[in-house]
Amino acid sequence: MKHTAIKDALQAKKFDEEITICGWVRTRRDSKKFSFMELNDGTCFASIQVIADSEIDSYKNVLNASTGSSVKVIGLLKESPGKGQKVEVHAQKVEIFGVADSDYPLQKKRHSREFLRTIAHLRTRTNTFGAVFRVRHAASFAVNKFFNERGFYYLHTPIITASDCEGAGQMFRVSTLDAINPPLNEKKEVDYTKDFFAEETSLTVSGQLEAELFASALSKVYTFGPTFRAENSNTARHLAEFWMIEPEMAFCDLAGNMDLAEEFIRYVIKYVLENCEEDMQFFNKWVEKGIIQSLEDLCKSDFERMTYTDAIKVLEKANKSFDFPVKWGIDIQTEHERYLTEEYHKKPVFITDYPRDIKAFYMRVNDDEKTVAAMDLLVPRLGEIIGGSQREERLDVLKKNMAKHDLDEETYSWYMDIRRYGTTPHAGFGLGFERLIMYLTGIENIRDVVPFPRTPGSAKF
Amino acid sequence: MKHTAIKDALQAKKFDEEITICGWVRTRRDSKKFSFMELNDGTCFASIQVIADSEIDSYKNVLNASTGSSVKVIGLLKESPGKGQKVEVHAQKVEIFGVADSDYPLQKKRHSREFLRTIAHLRTRTNTFGAVFRVRHAASFAVNKFFNERGFYYLHTPIITASDCEGAGQMFRVSTLDAINPPLNEKKEVDYTKDFFAEETSLTVSGQLEAELFASALSKVYTFGPTFRAENSNTARHLAEFWMIEPEMAFCDLAGNMDLAEEFIRYVIKYVLENCEEDMQFFNKWVEKGIIQSLEDLCKSDFERMTYTDAIKVLEKANKSFDFPVKWGIDIQTEHERYLTEEYHKKPVFITDYPRDIKAFYMRVNDDEKTVAAMDLLVPRLGEIIGGSQREERLDVLKKNMAKHDLDEETYSWYMDIRRYGTTPHAGFGLGFERLIMYLTGIENIRDVVPFPRTPGSAKF
Repeated sequence: MKHTAIKDALQAKKFDEEITICGWVRTRRDSKKFSFMELNDGTCFASIQVIADSEIDSYKNVLNASTGSSVKVIGLLKESPGKGQKVEVHAQKVEIFGVADSDYPLQKKRHSREFLRTIAHLRTRTNTFGAVFRVRHAASFAVNKFFNERGFYYLHTPIITASDCEGAGQMFRVSTLDAINPPLNEKKEVDYTKDFFAEETSLTVSGQLEAELFASALSKVYTFGPTFRAENSNTARHLAEFWMIEPEMAFCDLAGNMDLAEEFIRYVIKYVLENCEEDMQFFNKWVEKGIIQSLEDLCKSDFERMTYTDAIKVLEKANKSFDFPVKWGIDIQTEHERYLTEEYHKKPVFITDYPRDIKAFYMRVNDDEKTVAAMDLLVPRLGEIIGGSQREERLDVLKKNMAKHDLDEETYSWYMDIRRYGTTPHAGFGLGFERLIMYLTGIENIRDVVPFPRTPGSAKF
Repeated sequence: MKHTAIKDALQAKKFDEEITICGWVRTRRDSKKFSFMELNDGTCFASIQVIADSEIDSYKNVLNASTGSSVKVIGLLKESPGKGQKVEVHAQKVEIFGVADSDYPLQKKRHSREFLRTIAHLRTRTNTFGAVFRVRHAASFAVNKFFNERGFYYLHTPIITASDCEGAGQMFRVSTLDAINPPLNEKKEVDYTKDFFAEETSLTVSGQLEAELFASALSKVYTFGPTFRAENSNTARHLAEFWMIEPEMAFCDLAGNMDLAEEFIRYVIKYVLENCEEDMQFFNKWVEKGIIQSLEDLCKSDFERMTYTDAIKVLEKANKSFDFPVKWGIDIQTEHERYLTEEYHKKPVFITDYPRDIKAFYMRVNDDEKTVAAMDLLVPRLGEIIGGSQREERLDVLKKNMAKHDLDEETYSWYMDIRRYGTTPHAGFGLGFERLIMYLTGIENIRDVVPFPRTPGSAKF
């Protein structure tokens, strides 16, 4: 079924040649002698205008092509006299693949995002969601391109896991045991030795620990895959299933880690601005006014670096009433993050060297023994976008941290082995891909940047 | 920690300049006046030779650098007088990041792949597994590059699902209900309305159905992500968790689908041959003799296309005793596949138009009503590598097929909607990424081409 993508047709330079295009009817209006159809195939933001003369043999097909119907048009590509469009197609023949039933929910009017979420199988045909998923694609490709160009190897870490990266966080159980009457052991607990993997397994919350193993062999690796949290959080910022990006580098400290994070963010933003111009213009006009300028500014800014201790001092002195009171030792909240990046520094800022007690067991303990070599990158409009650290490479210190966090040495023996056999300073960071897409598009609800969101009470499609 | 990747050091053209390299000691031998270390950092197959004069201050570090230890070497890059290596480093200073304990399992000797599987956290430091995972990276990048260049949008289909793509296949249950005493409903069944997603959910076996939804909006999409089978198959060809690639195209028929599959396979092979030369030379010499020639041949072959019905005739006439007897209606087995591609055609072959009864409900029924517009691509050495079909786009026919397969219309209403609202001819295929890596490397056990294999009884690391 040879045909030309509408994206290519719209960029054509040669006119008056025969062309075949396929797509879905966005709108149609008929005059006495002509019918005008806007045809969209999702290959780009814009639709193409098709003009059908009522004299053509297949004009009855044109009249049947209701909004949402899929059609094939053979015609001549013409330079358009109309404003705002350079190209149109003068139809010679129109075929219908399938009409849209009259209850097609995407009739020409504005729909709320809440409503569109209930028809996630159709919403990609709208301007907003077509643009979101083209940007999501471009950002995905930029992620892989960035790391490939820098000698990082892509690592597919396991989804099903018997360990728990953070020593915390609620997880989804994965099992094939009988759901009503699972086998029990002598202690009347579920006997997971009879389960598929012969032990209790869950969905991963992070690929970091495995990435550390591979960095200890290939030097630089990254993961880019789904991760899971079984938290009952029904907010605009949480999903039960989301994609994470986690680079990990051997022979690297916290400063090198921040250098990479900075370069990474700039790279992905530039790639999307250059490759999704039309989609980004749409977000700029209809979703978040000024977003293009804000992203361009970020690419040009110097990124600030300040310690947590200094950040707390700044927050304490701020002439501002925060919902969460500030003192050394607290978790920095979104309101604090946004003050630091939007009002105080007015640019992106890395906060480093957080209190040991509020951070994970694998972070490298600083010489003060109170803080760890962690970093979070805060950006205007969003707050934290990246979190990372140098990892604890000293076996004795790691063991103490694990004991503090009640982690079982046997379960993590493989993780500790890396510290036994040629341990190296190493570092990495993680970022949630959906939060990056929210940042790039201005879309405010995380459910609207993922094809089929998984949230408490919803696993539809 | 600025340093030069060994990959870059080995390609250097400027000599007698200071260089810093980091890596793990593969071997070391000491003479009276010098020590020779092979240092590998995983950035490429080759190690670099470091020569340390016993006169340097840090020579005691050199003598402590046992196999597996991680070191930093500052020295001068020199053109090597030795055979087979162009570059060496004359050490001025050697630091140890971490020694390897004396029980380091990767001492200089051959290890069986079975043994290495038990230390999957360390095996990537060996020649074989370093090469496997660099090839896996290159093939991953080639997949994304191929589709990006052709206007396909990358789609992240959900891992947690309430539906079951094939209407068959064993699945892993995903739940947060109490494992011993789950809530029961009036019928004494598990009350999944109380579970996290308010219904019963599993790990996906395929992203195809969701890809069809997105192709019905963006025209061309592909998935590349993890999929799951809870089959108790302990074979060299099965994993419980593996990565799949599934492109899907609107306005496309079976012929266009085969064109894409052919182009895809050639592209990935060429990319890997061009970008992993040294790794492929290793496989060619030590793992599967002649594999490079065999892959180059495949890139040059015309791919044959024959119907299932013709394939059965050929198999019936074959002067060959098969374990599985041949007659129209059977599933073609690996032995049949290999005969057709290796002996009969001596090149890759697409088998098309399989009997309806042995194929999935979503495949498009041919006019004969006995066969469906399916295709499998068979290649020498492996058998089936790709399976695909044109999808049933006619709502009435689809409904009949679903009834035949005992599929509930309500569960799949979203899938059927696509046929109600501007249905289009569309097609796609799937391939298991690990099988592709086996094909590219000659590695015979699927557990050896995935970082941390998930198989019955094993979810380690």
